[in-house]
Amino acid sequence: MNIPKTSYPRIVIIGGGFAGVALAKKLSKQEVQVVLLDKHNYHTFQPLLYQVSTGGLEPDSIAYPIRKILKDFPNFFFRLANVQEIDTKKNKVKTNIGNLKFDYLVIASGSKTNYFGNAEIEKHSMAMKTIPQSLNLRSLILENFEDALLTSDLHERNALMNFVIVGGGPTGVELAGALAEIKKGILPKDYPDLDTRSAQIHVVQSGDCILKGMSSKASQKAEDFLEKLGVNIWKNVRVTNYDGKTVTTNTDLTFETATLIWAAGVKGATIKGLDSEDFVTKGNRILVNEFSQVKGFNHIFAAGDVAFMETKDFPRGLPMMAQPAIQQGQQLGDNLLNAIEKKPMKPFTYKDKGLMATIGRNKAVVDLEKWKFQGVFAWYVWMFVHLFFLIGFRNRMVVFVNWVYNYVRFDREARLIIRPFKKRNTL
Amino acid sequence: MNIPKTSYPRIVIIGGGFAGVALAKKLSKQEVQVVLLDKHNYHTFQPLLYQVSTGGLEPDSIAYPIRKILKDFPNFFFRLANVQEIDTKKNKVKTNIGNLKFDYLVIASGSKTNYFGNAEIEKHSMAMKTIPQSLNLRSLILENFEDALLTSDLHERNALMNFVIVGGGPTGVELAGALAEIKKGILPKDYPDLDTRSAQIHVVQSGDCILKGMSSKASQKAEDFLEKLGVNIWKNVRVTNYDGKTVTTNTDLTFETATLIWAAGVKGATIKGLDSEDFVTKGNRILVNEFSQVKGFNHIFAAGDVAFMETKDFPRGLPMMAQPAIQQGQQLGDNLLNAIEKKPMKPFTYKDKGLMATIGRNKAVVDLEKWKFQGVFAWYVWMFVHLFFLIGFRNRMVVFVNWVYNYVRFDREARLIIRPFKKRNTL
Repeated sequence: MNIPKTSYPRIVIIGGGFAGVALAKKLSKQEVQVVLLDKHNYHTFQPLLYQVSTGGLEPDSIAYPIRKILKDFPNFFFRLANVQEIDTKKNKVKTNIGNLKFDYLVIASGSKTNYFGNAEIEKHSMAMKTIPQSLNLRSLILENFEDALLTSDLHERNALMNFVIVGGGPTGVELAGALAEIKKGILPKDYPDLDTRSAQIHVVQSGDCILKGMSSKASQKAEDFLEKLGVNIWKNVRVTNYDGKTVTTNTDLTFETATLIWAAGVKGATIKGLDSEDFVTKGNRILVNEFSQVKGFNHIFAAGDVAFMETKDFPRGLPMMAQPAIQQGQQLGDNLLNAIEKKPMKPFTYKDKGLMATIGRNKAVVDLEKWKFQGVFAWYVWMFVHLFFLIGFRNRMVVFVNWVYNYVRFDREARLIIRPFKKRNTL
Repeated sequence: MNIPKTSYPRIVIIGGGFAGVALAKKLSKQEVQVVLLDKHNYHTFQPLLYQVSTGGLEPDSIAYPIRKILKDFPNFFFRLANVQEIDTKKNKVKTNIGNLKFDYLVIASGSKTNYFGNAEIEKHSMAMKTIPQSLNLRSLILENFEDALLTSDLHERNALMNFVIVGGGPTGVELAGALAEIKKGILPKDYPDLDTRSAQIHVVQSGDCILKGMSSKASQKAEDFLEKLGVNIWKNVRVTNYDGKTVTTNTDLTFETATLIWAAGVKGATIKGLDSEDFVTKGNRILVNEFSQVKGFNHIFAAGDVAFMETKDFPRGLPMMAQPAIQQGQQLGDNLLNAIEKKPMKPFTYKDKGLMATIGRNKAVVDLEKWKFQGVFAWYVWMFVHLFFLIGFRNRMVVFVNWVYNYVRFDREARLIIRPFKKRNTL
């Protein structure tokens, strides 16, 4: 790979997500060379992907060009690349565009959808981890309603209008709420010739509550909100298979649906060379110490979703979310500079800023350390926090305009099938 | 196709572009049944496609859901369909989702890129008539710059950074100006490790001026603006072939480029059944009389780009642009209602509102009937008019926010490769 050699130590970062970008920003204008590799040329603000899927936001407003984030940092290099292997002996990463030597390596490759080994579910279900996936889901939902108009078979029509969301975490809950609002406010107007009342939204949760990382108050209130919106919540039910038509579970319950959204779990996106049992632990995550170092190496680190770091408060690893990733990335930036200057590194401590989820219009739940609240105010807090963490002034403005418009007009205008998902369409 | 039969006459409209939508709006809430067929579920504001291609706007802000345009019209039906054939004997259209009888038919299928029979150019070049095409071009431009970083072959690198635009009409001129601004303001920051000064933008024009439909003052000024921006304009040169690497012309001139944008012409998008010599004339457009009627029929009409209507001022047919389409659609709405009530129809008269094109920041040319002007004020007029004609308040707000941001910051943040165009990328 064509990166100039300098006298500065080279830090290679794999992944431009929350951890990778926070780290790169910390290293900006320091006496290091930073090479960031990502398979997209943009950073994705994943917490708002569900709004892209449901026509509330345009994809471009939750993405930010990685090159722009660090445009004033002369020793920063970005390459659009798929990392294929890490060679820890030769201190080299292998990618689809060539090999690259590193002095320090940070794996911040994030996570991917965990199908728990079920290939049939993987084949037939929709995931929502990237912008292209979110747009595919948007297209599929809209295409299914267009198709529902074409069939006189009642079973088929209902299957096209039903949604089964597997997983009652924040992604599943937020998506279910948005779909329920679409069903109520938009479908009857857009499809007056369909009986959209029979459209059903199901959330299937293997455990005995939704939003299980949050307080029981938040969990209960979120359930109330969803039920008020007409969402069916199935607890203590585990989805066992989906053949593209019928969802089977570990109970007698089955669902007929053309759309299964798999939000039941994620796993670390490990990379060949550091993906063996020696390095990988629960959730397919790379075990790291309190300095984010991978076992056996002083110069190889992991941060964010892909890293498994135990803390006092989180003996089962930090949650796979934006906040731990950002904080780890920032701390690692300081530690890398310390390491280069032969100063001692500082152990990572996680400042838990709380958890939140939105269910719909005026409906959110927020758990802060000392204050837990739900409803309208929580909804404003949720919006404010998400706008604040979104990268880029333009993105914030565009998202804000959309939110105000959607709120005032009870609308979601980005219900556009820009790139059809179903193959039979010939555009 | 599953459309209810009513006592109202059924008007089938093929195409949800400017003509089709203007017509459908005119018929809203009248005693007719309207069925609009389009292969997209949205209306595209084509004049701003070049800004989507060049990262200035998100696609969702220049598209508008067709179902929403007519949501308050109870006898309006939309179907996502490809029309395959018109059966004028049985008064029926055949589509990929079934057949549909009509009492009145309006063909408003628009235009498509005209390659003048050159299959190789068609295969290797990029067009910009639809949103997916614009996004493909956006991806390709950005991917080419990423690839330029990977090669040490100077010729290949230059070819990846060169752009050849064939056609000096508004599309070609506006795109060339936008690319020149990107070259100047964005590339040096995004790609500090590339010598982006060697990126070249060529406009190849077969005639002896650019913007040939406009005044000679506008044409000359546009040329000055483009040259100031560093664009190379080649007049009286006709592109003869492009194999994906080398552009050949009818002169000694050749260009090495990985990106040829074909904006040299459009032709009517006719449909089987009405595509024979009996109906089709210059520019592959369907000949219509002053009532938009197709020759030989009282109940079959054509409007917009696909219709060839001679007027006193335009003996070679009205221009293939938004304004004639909108005006024809509106007039046809009145005429259809007259026809149904057995009243006489009124002949179409075109109110020429003028022509305009933007070249870049503070640079536009405007030809009104009595006033022709260029420069900063023309640029404001151009923006105001485009915002005004854009459908949807949300779209106007989002476009406005983007324009203000881009102006103040000299930026275009939607430089995102959301769906790669080149196949080798594995996302």
